[in-house]
Amino acid sequence: MNVFIEPIGKLINQFTKLPGVGAKTAQRYAYKVINMTEEDAAEFAESILNAKRLVHYCKVCGNFTDKDVCDVCATRDNSVICVVKEPKDVLAMEKAHEFKGVYHVLHGTISPMDGITPNDIRIKELLERISQGGVKEVIMATNPDVEGEATAMYISSLLKPLGIKVTRLAHGIPIGSELEYADEITISRALLDRKEL
Amino acid sequence: MNVFIEPIGKLINQFTKLPGVGAKTAQRYAYKVINMTEEDAAEFAESILNAKRLVHYCKVCGNFTDKDVCDVCATRDNSVICVVKEPKDVLAMEKAHEFKGVYHVLHGTISPMDGITPNDIRIKELLERISQGGVKEVIMATNPDVEGEATAMYISSLLKPLGIKVTRLAHGIPIGSELEYADEITISRALLDRKEL
Repeated sequence: MNVFIEPIGKLINQFTKLPGVGAKTAQRYAYKVINMTEEDAAEFAESILNAKRLVHYCKVCGNFTDKDVCDVCATRDNSVICVVKEPKDVLAMEKAHEFKGVYHVLHGTISPMDGITPNDIRIKELLERISQGGVKEVIMATNPDVEGEATAMYISSLLKPLGIKVTRLAHGIPIGSELEYADEITISRALLDRKEL
Repeated sequence: MNVFIEPIGKLINQFTKLPGVGAKTAQRYAYKVINMTEEDAAEFAESILNAKRLVHYCKVCGNFTDKDVCDVCATRDNSVICVVKEPKDVLAMEKAHEFKGVYHVLHGTISPMDGITPNDIRIKELLERISQGGVKEVIMATNPDVEGEATAMYISSLLKPLGIKVTRLAHGIPIGSELEYADEITISRALLDRKEL
Protein backbone atom coordinates (compact mmCIF):
# COMPACT_ATOMS: atom_id res chain seq x y z
CA MET A 1 0.00 0.00 0.00
CA ASN A 2 1.32 3.43 -0.90
CA VAL A 3 1.92 5.74 2.05
CA PHE A 4 0.29 8.69 0.28
CA ILE A 5 -3.10 8.76 -1.44
CA GLU A 6 -2.80 9.86 -5.05
CA PRO A 7 -3.83 13.56 -4.93
CA ILE A 8 -1.46 14.21 -2.01
CA GLY A 9 1.36 12.22 -3.60
CA LYS A 10 0.98 14.20 -6.83
CA LEU A 11 1.06 17.54 -5.03
CA ILE A 12 4.15 16.50 -3.04
CA ASN A 13 5.79 15.50 -6.31
CA GLN A 14 5.03 18.95 -7.77
CA PHE A 15 6.53 20.73 -4.77
CA THR A 16 9.76 18.73 -5.03
CA LYS A 17 10.31 20.41 -8.42
CA LEU A 18 10.93 23.71 -6.64
CA PRO A 19 14.59 24.52 -5.97
CA GLY A 20 15.96 23.08 -2.72
CA VAL A 21 12.73 21.29 -1.79
CA GLY A 22 13.12 17.67 -0.68
CA ALA A 23 10.50 15.04 0.11
CA LYS A 24 10.04 16.12 3.73
CA THR A 25 9.59 19.82 2.95
CA ALA A 26 7.28 19.05 0.02
CA GLN A 27 5.17 16.96 2.36
CA ARG A 28 4.86 19.84 4.83
CA TYR A 29 3.84 22.17 1.99
CA ALA A 30 1.24 19.69 0.74
CA TYR A 31 -0.34 19.32 4.17
CA LYS A 32 -0.45 23.08 4.44
CA VAL A 33 -2.32 23.30 1.12
CA ILE A 34 -4.82 20.65 2.23
CA ASN A 35 -5.49 22.65 5.38
CA MET A 36 -6.08 25.86 3.40
CA THR A 37 -9.60 27.08 2.70
CA GLU A 38 -11.01 26.24 -0.73
CA GLU A 39 -10.64 29.92 -1.76
CA ASP A 40 -7.02 30.19 -0.65
CA ALA A 41 -6.07 27.06 -2.59
CA ALA A 42 -7.87 28.39 -5.68
CA GLU A 43 -6.04 31.70 -5.35
CA PHE A 44 -2.71 29.89 -5.00
CA ALA A 45 -3.35 27.78 -8.10
CA GLU A 46 -4.45 30.84 -10.06
CA SER A 47 -1.39 32.85 -9.11
CA ILE A 48 0.76 30.09 -10.61
CA LEU A 49 -1.24 30.13 -13.85
CA ASN A 50 -1.23 33.93 -13.99
CA ALA A 51 2.48 34.26 -13.37
CA LYS A 52 3.04 31.86 -16.25
CA ARG A 53 0.40 33.39 -18.54
CA LEU A 54 0.94 37.12 -17.97
CA VAL A 55 4.70 37.27 -17.58
CA HIS A 56 6.99 37.41 -20.61
CA TYR A 57 10.20 39.17 -21.62
CA CYS A 58 10.36 42.94 -22.17
CA LYS A 59 11.07 43.40 -25.87
CA VAL A 60 13.73 46.01 -25.10
CA CYS A 61 15.72 44.72 -22.12
CA GLY A 62 14.71 41.06 -21.86
CA ASN A 63 13.63 41.29 -18.21
CA PHE A 64 10.30 39.85 -17.04
CA THR A 65 7.29 42.10 -17.54
CA ASP A 66 3.53 41.87 -17.99
CA LYS A 67 3.59 44.76 -20.48
CA ASP A 68 5.06 45.19 -23.93
CA VAL A 69 7.94 47.33 -22.68
CA CYS A 70 8.76 47.07 -18.96
CA ASP A 71 8.37 49.98 -16.51
CA VAL A 72 12.12 50.38 -16.16
CA CYS A 73 12.73 50.74 -19.90
CA ALA A 74 9.69 53.02 -20.26
CA THR A 75 10.53 55.49 -17.52
CA ARG A 76 14.24 55.61 -16.69
CA ASP A 77 17.50 57.06 -17.95
CA ASN A 78 18.27 55.24 -21.21
CA SER A 79 21.84 56.54 -21.48
CA VAL A 80 23.26 54.03 -19.00
CA ILE A 81 22.70 50.31 -19.55
CA CYS A 82 23.52 47.70 -16.90
CA VAL A 83 24.17 44.28 -18.46
CA VAL A 84 23.23 41.25 -16.34
CA LYS A 85 23.01 37.51 -16.87
CA GLU A 86 19.48 36.78 -15.65
CA PRO A 87 16.22 38.50 -14.62
CA LYS A 88 16.92 37.76 -10.95
CA ASP A 89 20.11 39.81 -11.21
CA VAL A 90 17.97 42.83 -12.12
CA LEU A 91 16.13 42.26 -8.86
CA ALA A 92 19.38 42.15 -6.89
CA MET A 93 20.49 45.42 -8.50
CA GLU A 94 17.14 47.12 -7.91
CA LYS A 95 17.20 46.24 -4.22
CA ALA A 96 20.33 48.37 -3.83
CA HIS A 97 18.27 51.44 -4.91
CA GLU A 98 21.43 52.94 -6.39
CA PHE A 99 21.17 52.42 -10.13
CA LYS A 100 18.92 54.82 -12.07
CA GLY A 101 19.56 53.58 -15.61
CA VAL A 102 18.11 50.68 -17.60
CA TYR A 103 19.04 47.02 -17.92
CA HIS A 104 19.94 44.48 -20.56
CA VAL A 105 19.39 40.84 -19.64
CA LEU A 106 21.65 38.48 -21.59
CA HIS A 107 19.81 35.28 -20.55
CA GLY A 108 23.10 33.46 -20.10
CA THR A 109 26.84 33.98 -20.31
CA ILE A 110 29.36 32.76 -22.86
CA SER A 111 30.45 29.24 -21.88
CA PRO A 112 32.25 27.18 -24.53
CA MET A 113 32.23 24.20 -22.15
CA ASP A 114 28.43 24.16 -22.22
CA GLY A 115 28.30 25.05 -25.92
CA ILE A 116 27.01 28.58 -25.26
CA THR A 117 28.50 30.97 -27.82
CA PRO A 118 28.03 34.77 -28.13
CA ASN A 119 25.22 34.04 -30.61
CA ASP A 120 23.23 32.14 -27.98
CA ILE A 121 22.81 35.09 -25.63
CA ARG A 122 21.28 38.53 -26.23
CA ILE A 123 24.44 40.34 -27.38
CA LYS A 124 23.07 41.16 -30.84
CA GLU A 125 20.08 42.86 -29.19
CA LEU A 126 22.45 44.91 -27.03
CA LEU A 127 24.37 46.10 -30.08
CA GLU A 128 21.10 47.03 -31.79
CA ARG A 129 20.01 49.08 -28.77
CA ILE A 130 23.33 50.90 -28.77
CA SER A 131 23.25 51.51 -32.53
CA GLN A 132 20.09 53.58 -31.99
CA GLY A 133 22.29 56.14 -30.21
CA GLY A 134 22.13 57.95 -26.88
CA VAL A 135 23.98 55.35 -24.82
CA LYS A 136 26.89 56.83 -22.86
CA GLU A 137 27.88 54.00 -20.57
CA VAL A 138 27.47 50.25 -20.34
CA ILE A 139 28.01 48.71 -16.89
CA MET A 140 28.94 45.02 -17.01
CA ALA A 141 27.30 43.34 -14.01
CA THR A 142 27.71 39.69 -14.99
CA ASN A 143 28.80 37.35 -12.17
CA PRO A 144 32.45 37.39 -11.07
CA ASP A 145 33.04 33.82 -12.30
CA VAL A 146 34.92 32.58 -15.37
CA GLU A 147 31.93 32.82 -17.72
CA GLY A 148 30.81 36.17 -16.36
CA GLU A 149 34.29 37.68 -16.70
CA ALA A 150 34.74 36.28 -20.21
CA THR A 151 31.37 37.66 -21.27
CA ALA A 152 32.19 41.07 -19.81
CA MET A 153 35.54 41.14 -21.65
CA TYR A 154 33.95 40.02 -24.92
CA ILE A 155 31.17 42.62 -24.86
CA SER A 156 33.65 45.28 -23.79
CA SER A 157 35.82 44.45 -26.83
CA LEU A 158 32.79 44.98 -29.10
CA LEU A 159 31.68 48.25 -27.52
CA LYS A 160 34.94 50.12 -26.99
CA PRO A 161 35.57 50.62 -30.75
CA LEU A 162 32.12 52.31 -30.85
CA GLY A 163 33.32 54.91 -28.34
CA ILE A 164 31.06 53.63 -25.55
CA LYS A 165 32.37 53.81 -21.98
CA VAL A 166 32.32 50.27 -20.57
CA THR A 167 32.64 49.73 -16.81
CA ARG A 168 32.54 46.72 -14.50
CA LEU A 169 31.07 46.38 -10.99
CA ALA A 170 33.84 46.63 -8.37
CA HIS A 171 35.02 43.44 -6.68
CA GLY A 172 36.19 43.34 -3.08
CA ILE A 173 35.35 42.42 0.49
CA PRO A 174 31.57 42.39 0.97
CA ILE A 175 30.24 45.05 3.37
CA GLY A 176 29.36 43.62 6.76
CA SER A 177 31.39 40.45 6.29
CA GLU A 178 34.59 39.59 8.12
CA LEU A 179 38.00 39.57 6.51
CA GLU A 180 38.66 36.21 8.17
CA TYR A 181 35.94 34.57 6.07
CA ALA A 182 36.75 36.17 2.72
CA ASP A 183 38.36 33.80 0.21
CA GLU A 184 41.91 34.45 -0.99
CA ILE A 185 40.92 35.49 -4.52
CA THR A 186 38.55 38.14 -3.21
CA ILE A 187 41.22 39.42 -0.83
CA SER A 188 43.91 39.63 -3.49
CA ARG A 189 41.44 41.41 -5.78
CA ALA A 190 40.51 43.85 -3.01
CA LEU A 191 44.21 44.50 -2.44
CA LEU A 192 44.88 45.17 -6.11
CA ASP A 193 41.90 47.52 -6.36
CA ARG A 194 42.66 49.32 -3.07
CA LYS A 195 41.63 52.98 -2.84
CA GLU A 196 43.42 55.89 -1.23
CA LEU A 197 41.60 57.31 1.81
CA MET B 1 8.32 51.78 -8.56
CA ASN B 2 7.64 48.33 -7.16
CA VAL B 3 10.52 45.89 -7.49
CA PHE B 4 8.20 43.09 -8.64
CA ILE B 5 5.60 43.24 -11.37
CA GLU B 6 2.16 42.27 -10.10
CA PRO B 7 1.80 38.62 -11.24
CA ILE B 8 5.23 37.75 -9.81
CA GLY B 9 4.59 39.67 -6.60
CA LYS B 10 1.29 37.84 -6.11
CA LEU B 11 2.88 34.44 -6.65
CA ILE B 12 5.71 35.25 -4.21
CA ASN B 13 3.08 36.29 -1.70
CA GLN B 14 1.31 32.93 -2.12
CA PHE B 15 4.52 30.97 -1.61
CA THR B 16 5.27 32.83 1.64
CA LYS B 17 2.11 31.25 3.07
CA LEU B 18 3.84 27.86 3.04
CA PRO B 19 5.46 26.85 6.33
CA GLY B 20 9.03 28.11 6.77
CA VAL B 21 9.08 30.02 3.47
CA GLY B 22 10.43 33.58 3.66
CA ALA B 23 10.58 36.29 1.02
CA LYS B 24 13.86 35.11 -0.48
CA THR B 25 12.81 31.46 -0.82
CA ALA B 26 9.39 32.45 -2.17
CA GLN B 27 11.15 34.55 -4.80
CA ARG B 28 13.28 31.59 -5.90
CA TYR B 29 10.17 29.41 -6.12
CA ALA B 30 8.35 32.05 -8.18
CA TYR B 31 11.22 32.38 -10.68
CA LYS B 32 11.26 28.60 -10.97
CA VAL B 33 7.55 28.61 -11.83
CA ILE B 34 8.03 31.32 -14.46
CA ASN B 35 10.75 29.24 -16.06
CA MET B 36 8.55 26.13 -16.18
CA THR B 37 6.81 25.11 -19.37
CA GLU B 38 3.17 26.13 -19.74
CA GLU B 39 2.13 22.48 -19.20
CA ASP B 40 4.20 22.01 -16.06
CA ALA B 41 2.76 25.16 -14.50
CA ALA B 42 -0.77 24.03 -15.38
CA GLU B 43 -0.09 20.62 -13.85
CA PHE B 44 1.26 22.26 -10.70
CA ALA B 45 -1.80 24.50 -10.36
CA GLU B 46 -4.12 21.57 -10.97
CA SER B 47 -2.44 19.37 -8.36
CA ILE B 48 -3.13 22.09 -5.78
CA LEU B 49 -6.80 22.26 -6.77
CA ASN B 50 -7.12 18.46 -6.87
CA ALA B 51 -5.48 17.94 -3.49
CA LYS B 52 -7.97 20.40 -2.05
CA ARG B 53 -10.97 19.07 -4.00
CA LEU B 54 -10.42 15.29 -3.78
CA VAL B 55 -9.00 14.95 -0.29
CA HIS B 56 -11.25 14.78 2.75
CA TYR B 57 -11.38 12.89 6.04
CA CYS B 58 -12.01 9.13 6.19
CA LYS B 59 -15.36 8.75 7.92
CA VAL B 60 -13.99 5.97 10.10
CA CYS B 61 -10.53 7.07 11.24
CA GLY B 62 -10.39 10.77 10.34
CA ASN B 63 -7.21 10.48 8.26
CA PHE B 64 -6.96 12.05 4.79
CA THR B 65 -8.41 9.99 1.97
CA ASP B 66 -9.91 10.43 -1.48
CA LYS B 67 -12.42 7.61 -0.84
CA ASP B 68 -15.33 7.21 1.54
CA VAL B 69 -13.39 4.89 3.83
CA CYS B 70 -9.58 4.99 3.57
CA ASP B 71 -7.48 2.05 2.38
CA VAL B 72 -6.08 1.43 5.83
CA CYS B 73 -9.51 1.16 7.45
CA ALA B 74 -10.80 -0.93 4.56
CA THR B 75 -8.06 -3.55 4.48
CA ARG B 76 -6.22 -3.89 7.77
CA ASP B 77 -6.56 -5.47 11.20
CA ASN B 78 -9.39 -3.61 12.95
CA SER B 79 -8.70 -5.09 16.36
CA VAL B 80 -5.80 -2.74 17.12
CA ILE B 81 -6.31 1.04 16.91
CA CYS B 82 -3.42 3.49 17.05
CA VAL B 83 -4.60 6.93 18.27
CA VAL B 84 -2.69 9.95 16.91
CA LYS B 85 -3.08 13.70 17.02
CA GLU B 86 -2.90 14.59 13.31
CA PRO B 87 -2.92 13.03 9.83
CA LYS B 88 0.82 13.60 9.46
CA ASP B 89 1.39 11.41 12.51
CA VAL B 90 -0.23 8.52 10.60
CA LEU B 91 2.40 9.10 7.93
CA ALA B 92 5.22 8.97 10.48
CA MET B 93 3.86 5.69 11.86
CA GLU B 94 3.39 4.16 8.40
CA LYS B 95 6.97 4.94 7.45
CA ALA B 96 8.16 2.62 10.24
CA HIS B 97 6.39 -0.31 8.44
CA GLU B 98 5.79 -1.93 11.82
CA PHE B 99 2.17 -1.30 12.67
CA LYS B 100 -0.44 -3.50 10.98
CA GLY B 101 -3.59 -2.18 12.63
CA VAL B 102 -5.77 0.86 11.95
CA TYR B 103 -5.65 4.48 13.10
CA HIS B 104 -7.80 7.03 14.82
CA VAL B 105 -6.93 10.67 14.20
CA LEU B 106 -8.05 12.97 17.02
CA HIS B 107 -7.41 16.22 15.10
CA GLY B 108 -5.99 17.83 18.20
CA THR B 109 -5.14 17.11 21.81
CA ILE B 110 -6.80 18.28 25.01
CA SER B 111 -5.40 21.69 25.91
CA PRO B 112 -7.33 23.73 28.50
CA MET B 113 -4.91 26.63 27.91
CA ASP B 114 -6.07 26.87 24.29
CA GLY B 115 -9.67 26.10 25.20
CA ILE B 116 -9.59 22.64 23.63
CA THR B 117 -11.72 20.26 25.67
CA PRO B 118 -12.31 16.51 25.15
CA ASN B 119 -15.47 17.46 23.22
CA ASP B 120 -13.44 19.38 20.63
CA ILE B 121 -11.42 16.39 19.44
CA ARG B 122 -12.58 13.06 18.00
CA ILE B 123 -12.85 11.12 21.27
CA LYS B 124 -16.60 10.48 20.92
CA GLU B 125 -15.97 8.91 17.51
CA LEU B 126 -13.31 6.66 19.06
CA LEU B 127 -15.72 5.45 21.72
CA GLU B 128 -18.34 4.76 19.03
CA ARG B 129 -15.86 2.67 17.05
CA ILE B 130 -14.99 0.67 20.15
CA SER B 131 -18.64 0.19 21.11
CA GLN B 132 -19.12 -1.72 17.85
CA GLY B 133 -16.88 -4.44 19.34
CA GLY B 134 -13.83 -6.35 18.13
CA VAL B 135 -11.21 -3.92 19.43
CA LYS B 136 -8.59 -5.63 21.57
CA GLU B 137 -5.98 -2.92 22.00
CA VAL B 138 -5.70 0.86 21.70
CA ILE B 139 -2.19 2.26 21.31
CA MET B 140 -1.87 5.89 22.40
CA ALA B 141 0.61 7.57 20.04
CA THR B 142 -0.04 11.22 20.88
CA ASN B 143 3.07 13.40 21.21
CA PRO B 144 5.16 13.13 24.38
CA ASP B 145 4.30 16.70 25.45
CA VAL B 146 1.96 17.92 28.20
CA GLU B 147 -1.16 17.92 25.99
CA GLY B 148 -0.32 14.58 24.39
CA GLU B 149 0.29 12.90 27.73
CA ALA B 150 -2.88 14.38 29.25
CA THR B 151 -4.93 13.22 26.27
CA ALA B 152 -3.45 9.72 26.48
CA MET B 153 -4.26 9.52 30.20
CA TYR B 154 -7.78 10.84 29.68
CA ILE B 155 -8.63 8.39 26.88
CA SER B 156 -7.02 5.57 28.83
CA SER B 157 -9.29 6.36 31.82
CA LEU B 158 -12.33 6.09 29.54
CA LEU B 159 -11.30 2.82 27.88
CA LYS B 160 -9.94 0.76 30.77
CA PRO B 161 -13.38 0.32 32.41
CA LEU B 162 -14.52 -1.15 29.07
CA GLY B 163 -11.89 -3.88 29.39
CA ILE B 164 -9.82 -2.58 26.49
CA LYS B 165 -6.03 -2.93 26.69
CA VAL B 166 -4.54 0.57 26.39
CA THR B 167 -0.83 0.98 25.67
CA ARG B 168 1.49 3.93 25.05
CA LEU B 169 4.44 4.21 22.66
CA ALA B 170 7.72 3.73 24.54
CA HIS B 171 9.81 6.79 25.30
CA GLY B 172 13.60 6.74 25.43
CA ILE B 173 16.82 7.62 23.67
CA PRO B 174 16.21 7.86 19.89
CA ILE B 175 18.01 5.20 17.84
CA GLY B 176 21.07 6.59 16.09
CA SER B 177 21.34 9.64 18.33
CA GLU B 178 24.03 10.26 20.93
CA LEU B 179 23.45 10.15 24.66
CA GLU B 180 25.38 13.41 24.94
CA TYR B 181 22.68 15.26 23.03
CA ALA B 182 19.63 13.72 24.68
CA ASP B 183 17.77 16.07 27.05
CA GLU B 184 17.58 15.26 30.76
CA ILE B 185 13.87 14.37 30.75
CA THR B 186 14.37 11.82 27.98
CA ILE B 187 17.36 10.32 29.82
CA SER B 188 15.54 10.04 33.14
CA ARG B 189 12.57 8.47 31.33
CA ALA B 190 14.88 6.01 29.54
CA LEU B 191 16.44 5.13 32.90
CA LEU B 192 13.06 4.52 34.57
CA ASP B 193 11.90 2.35 31.66
CA ARG B 194 15.20 0.43 31.36
CA LYS B 195 14.95 -3.17 30.15
CA GLU B 196 16.88 -6.23 31.28
CA LEU B 197 19.23 -7.61 28.61
